[in-house]
Parts: sequence; structure tokens; C-alpha cells
Amino acid sequence: MASSKKTPSLAETGERAVIRLIEKLFPAVQPDLVRGIGEDCAVISQQDDYLLVTTDTLVEGVHFRLDYTSPYLLGKKALAVNLSDIAAMGGIPAYAFLNLAAPPQLPLSFIRKLLQGINSWSKRYKVPLIGGDTVSSNGKIVLTITLIGRSPEKKAAFRSGAKEGDLVFVSGYLGDSAAGLTLLERNPAPQAEYKRLIKAHLDPTPRIELGRQLVQNNLINSMIDISDGLATDLAHVAEESGMGAEISSARVPISPSCRKLAKELNRSPMTWALSGGEDYEILFTVPKDKAGELPKISSRIFKIGRIVKKMGIYLIDNNEKKDISYTGFSHFSGSPQ
Amino acid sequence: MASSKKTPSLAETGERAVIRLIEKLFPAVQPDLVRGIGEDCAVISQQDDYLLVTTDTLVEGVHFRLDYTSPYLLGKKALAVNLSDIAAMGGIPAYAFLNLAAPPQLPLSFIRKLLQGINSWSKRYKVPLIGGDTVSSNGKIVLTITLIGRSPEKKAAFRSGAKEGDLVFVSGYLGDSAAGLTLLERNPAPQAEYKRLIKAHLDPTPRIELGRQLVQNNLINSMIDISDGLATDLAHVAEESGMGAEISSARVPISPSCRKLAKELNRSPMTWALSGGEDYEILFTVPKDKAGELPKISSRIFKIGRIVKKMGIYLIDNNEKKDISYTGFSHFSGSPQ
Repeated sequence: MASSKKTPSLAETGERAVIRLIEKLFPAVQPDLVRGIGEDCAVISQQDDYLLVTTDTLVEGVHFRLDYTSPYLLGKKALAVNLSDIAAMGGIPAYAFLNLAAPPQLPLSFIRKLLQGINSWSKRYKVPLIGGDTVSSNGKIVLTITLIGRSPEKKAAFRSGAKEGDLVFVSGYLGDSAAGLTLLERNPAPQAEYKRLIKAHLDPTPRIELGRQLVQNNLINSMIDISDGLATDLAHVAEESGMGAEISSARVPISPSCRKLAKELNRSPMTWALSGGEDYEILFTVPKDKAGELPKISSRIFKIGRIVKKMGIYLIDNNEKKDISYTGFSHFSGSPQ
Repeated sequence: MASSKKTPSLAETGERAVIRLIEKLFPAVQPDLVRGIGEDCAVISQQDDYLLVTTDTLVEGVHFRLDYTSPYLLGKKALAVNLSDIAAMGGIPAYAFLNLAAPPQLPLSFIRKLLQGINSWSKRYKVPLIGGDTVSSNGKIVLTITLIGRSPEKKAAFRSGAKEGDLVFVSGYLGDSAAGLTLLERNPAPQAEYKRLIKAHLDPTPRIELGRQLVQNNLINSMIDISDGLATDLAHVAEESGMGAEISSARVPISPSCRKLAKELNRSPMTWALSGGEDYEILFTVPKDKAGELPKISSRIFKIGRIVKKMGIYLIDNNEKKDISYTGFSHFSGSPQ
């Protein structure tokens, strides 16, 4: 084809260029649309509740490799990452849909195990698989799960509600998943010593109950789940709220196993924690006067910083401040950017 | 890996084996779930309406080839095939989601045109794109669209309602799409003479208004859209209704262009019409005493047969009867089975 001018590729523009195109072409004019593109879930206002919809795609060779995960864990994680988006709104998951593109030679037993993996979270949260599409692919497995949930009484948390002075919390250790992935990529065989890191990557736990309780008890101003890494996901919250954030390097929760592996491999555990992604913990901001109520809900949360007026995400380390906004994982331009 | 026993592959078991696995693992126990797996849309009962959800995946090299379709028409068709599922319930489409797995070197201009194609139906039916996921694939393009719709007042048509004696109608010519595909596979360059056939394949029209009117006016007992071919989709209606059907070979609507091309290529236009698939017309069954009201709604519908007690789909041709059940397109085992 005679092309006079080369147009930029996805690799050059990144996923955010696609989101901007969609926002431009499909302006959100429907009165019942509360949130669309750019939230963890789309939020549609109904008579008594909000309908929540989220969808995630996993591609073999990009998001997972069959030499280090099993079909069971693949199915389980595929649902978990969607459950995590519902958790980030404080919602209740309701129904799941599976779209599977798979090569014709794939054994049916693989699909049985994949479905059993999905079912382990399905049973836990009463989220049956009620539809989807199974098609032939001529290469790799591509898996899409779509999840529908609800926010009863229209109580939900968004990215955009953070206020100046809010304290910033996360629901668990960060960086374990990135550390586990690093391990698996070096050696797909299971390594008992670092079981915790490998589990964080292959079998993450969505924070459904915590997200729900934070919203039900009106304790938070904003929330997101950490899928692209703290640096990027906190930047989303800050940007959507028209604010900035300062986080204290010493307060970023990093597990002893993560630190140990980092030392062994001469890597930075802080880079894993800030930019690795796929933690599937939730991050939320709490007005100062409500922070005292948090221990009633969970003892496993970590205060890492606060919301400030000045835009940007600042890491404070020995009185040095560094802007780390959007240095998390990004599709098409690698990790970290 | 030491495998003592070979388990059957998807190619050997077909898509229906996957559906059976899902039905077994995820029994439909939720009281608000009206229809799940095995309908054109999942149907969830809400306070005043039914929520409809449908999702379809298109894989490059399987469902489309970039040498004979454009990114614009690809996007347009991807939404159209989902709209067709909403049409088959008599529903109103509301919101769309796009999951796109694409190689990093794909130009952003390709995605712009794809979105513009989606937008052409989006604007027509006020169905904005409000979410999704864009990820890197290491090979082909895989496109999933999920569509949410509604059935106001819980008025919807299902596959399962056909009654003995119902007349069977289709909303347009069958086989054009399969004929168009045959043409394109032989020669991807546009051929003006058979424009109609090529349009039927690359740019189908979902029958939203007709489906809606049939349901609103309580004229039908069952409905489905023809995506896998008349022989298979009518078999779904019959089986779900515990019935059979007889169709008259002479009444199957085949366009003059389709007949002309079939003659030219020494192919059977009836095979295209019965088994080709991707027609995206709707098929519905009407109690005899209501058939007189149909012309008020549409002049472009064709009566092709009737529902009978005896299970099976029988094609009547010169007083000969042949069972053609499930001879339409099937993923993993080719077309026709």
C-alpha cells in the first residue's frame, strides 16, 4: 500500500491515546451514565441501584504463560482481576461472562480446569457464569471476562473524590506480584521459599469485603484498585480529583519476602512496589477525621501518604521529593514507562 | 509432559461441549436470572425491566481478514452482530464495551477507523461505548464487543416459546452473506456486480426495529437471530421449545444475486441459505391467528414453514423430507458440520 505519511503506532502512542479517541468519539451524554471510560467500572444509574460493568482481557504470552501458570489458576485470576474492579467501587459482584478464543487443538480438559478456576471465585461470591462466546483462534489463547455488579442504594466510590488533606491507604503489601513475576520469568518451576510472591502474581485476592465496608460506612472519598502500579493508579486518583499526593517512601508496605528476593537479584523492591503493577490491592483516601474508624473495619491496611493541592505524585525519601506520576505499567510501552 | 490418555480437543468436541461444561459447573440458581447460557442474550430480571447482556468475539483470520474488510467495516460489523442478539430478544440496546487485543505496531489510525465504524451504529441506536480494555497481543487482532440492553416492562422473546402450529418467518434473504464470503475468499477486490452479497457479509443490518415491534405487539411465540445458519438456529428454537419444524425448500428466500453467483460457481444456493450463517436476519414463530397482523409491521418478511410436534428440522423438497438439524456453521468443526 502506498502510504505517504506514517501514522503513529499503538506502541508509540500507548493505551491512553485509545481512551482519548473513545472519549472524543463517544461523548457521555446519557443522563443515566454516572461514570464511563476512565473508571474501574462503568456506572449506570438505575431505579434503586447503580449497575457496575467491568471487563478485562488476558492474552497468552502477554499476560500469562502456560509454562508457569495452570489453566485452573488462569481462570481463577481472570475472574479475580475483574472482581478487583468491582471491589474498587465498593460494589457487589453479580454475574460473569466469558469470551474465550482458543486454538482448535486445545484439550477440552484444559477448558474444564479453566472453568473450575473461574468457579472457585464464582462460588465464593455467588457470581455465576451466565454467558459469553467460545471461538476458534488461530494462535494464542485470548480470554475476556466481563463482570456485572451492583451498588445498592447507589453508594459507590470513584477515583475522582479525593480531597486535600485526605490520608492515602492501601490494603496490603505492594510489589509482591512483580517480584513473583520476575521469579517465574527466570524459572517457571515453583520455588517453595517464595511461595507468597508467586501466589501474589498467579492467584491474587480481590478485596471485595473491604471495599464494600469502606463504602457502606461512608469512610472514604475515593478509591481505585492497583493494577498498573501505585505510581500510576494513585496518579489516576489525583488527576481525576484535581489534586496531587505525597507518599512516604518508608511507609510503602513491602513484604520481607519481596525485600529478600530483591536483595538476592540485586533489584529495587521500591520499583516493584511503585511500578510493578498487578497487586490488586485497593487504594483509598480517607478524610482525617474518619481515619480513627478504620481499625474497626480492618487491621491489615497501611497509611502511605496524603492528598495535597499541588498536582503530581511525590515520593518523599529522606526529605527528597521526586515526581513519580504514571511510572507504572503501561500496555504498548512496557513496564515501567 | 507424560500424558497417559489423550483428552479430546475442542476441534473434536465442538463449542457445545464447552456450553455443557459451563451449564454443569454453573447451575442457574439465582432467582433474578431469567435466561443464561443458550440464549441470544443473558436476561436478568430487575424492578421494572429485563437487563439484556450479549457479547461476541471476532478473531482476525477466523472471522475476518484485513485484505477484504476495512477497519471501519470491521468495527461496524462487530457492533452489528451484538445488536442482532438484542434484536432477537426484541430489546432496546443501551451501552457497549470494547475489548481490543492488538499488536503494538498497529497504527492508531486503524483504531480511529474501527471506532468510527462502531460509532456509525452507536449513533443510530444511541448506544455509546462506555468501557472496555485495550491490550497488547503478540499476533492477530481479537475484538470483543459486549452490549447491554433492556426489555421495558419485561417484554422479551425467547428461543423456547415456539408452539405446535406456529408459522415460521424470517426477516430477509438467507445465504447472501455466505455467498459474499465465498466471493471475497476467491478475490478480495470489490466486485461491483455482487455488491449486495459483499455488503451482506461485511456490513450486515441488525433487525432492531422489527424485533422490537414483534415483541411490543405480542405477535410472536419465539425468536432467534440467524448467525450460524437457518438449519442450526431453527434447530435451537425447536429444541428449546421441545418441538420440531418443517420448512419448505421453495419458500426459503434466496436473492437473485445469490442464485446467479451460485450458478456461476457451480455451488448450491440452498446450502448457503441453510448452512452458511452470518445472515443476521431474525427468525420468529407466530401463532396462526396472529399472522394476519404481520403485514402492518413489515412487508419484507418471508413465511418459510411451521412448527410441528415431531422433533427435528425437516426440509420439504418435492414431497421429500430430510432432517437438516444443526447443519449450520459450528466453531471448531468448520462449516457446515
